[in-house]
Amino acid sequence: MTTQIDIDFGENGLVPAVAQDAVSKDVLMVAYVSPEALEATRETGYAHYYSRSRDELWKKGASSGHLQAVEDIRVDCDADTLLYLVNQSGGACHTGHESCFYRSIDGENIGTKVFDPDEVY
Amino acid sequence: MTTQIDIDFGENGLVPAVAQDAVSKDVLMVAYVSPEALEATRETGYAHYYSRSRDELWKKGASSGHLQAVEDIRVDCDADTLLYLVNQSGGACHTGHESCFYRSIDGENIGTKVFDPDEVY
Repeated sequence: MTTQIDIDFGENGLVPAVAQDAVSKDVLMVAYVSPEALEATRETGYAHYYSRSRDELWKKGASSGHLQAVEDIRVDCDADTLLYLVNQSGGACHTGHESCFYRSIDGENIGTKVFDPDEVY
Repeated sequence: MTTQIDIDFGENGLVPAVAQDAVSKDVLMVAYVSPEALEATRETGYAHYYSRSRDELWKKGASSGHLQAVEDIRVDCDADTLLYLVNQSGGACHTGHESCFYRSIDGENIGTKVFDPDEVY
């Protein structure tokens, strides 16, 4: 038997969500999810987040076309972090890279560039 | 040429860090990292975090023995999230699972149990 997990959105009403490529298993990005964003993700099958800088619900790829089709959503042991397993269209990062984690901490660029941001944004 | 990236630790002095298994590429956990935790991680080669509940620097596995040897540290585009690529001893989750993300959002247990927490803690 399974029961829906009660997510702990905490004081600020947001949980971090890791987006992982369902095929390559690359970690693509981390963003924040509100209850509304989670509901929209489940209802539409496309990843939604909450933009803290724009202070609004954010459908990933709404402007760039680089949508994330969500295959599965996992929850961590404390129910305060989500994992989205996604099929990423284009690239996840606004810099044009497949993953936002395209740099080592020493600044070495080890990522794959998959689009030209000047042509997309 | 590479230059060390200036991490944006923000208002609360912490950044989220995703720990990913360097071999299986499974996402193991998400925890928070202070400047001191990052420094300790780089100096020792073992993952350190900052425990918000205990309000202290936390060497992962210090009590359980389930250390994370860090192969690489990546930084995201905004320099406010880290990715630790690790070799995990035992399991990452205090519940005995390999990964903290052992449940689907509908509560289905899809994780692998690798140790008995009653014997470890």
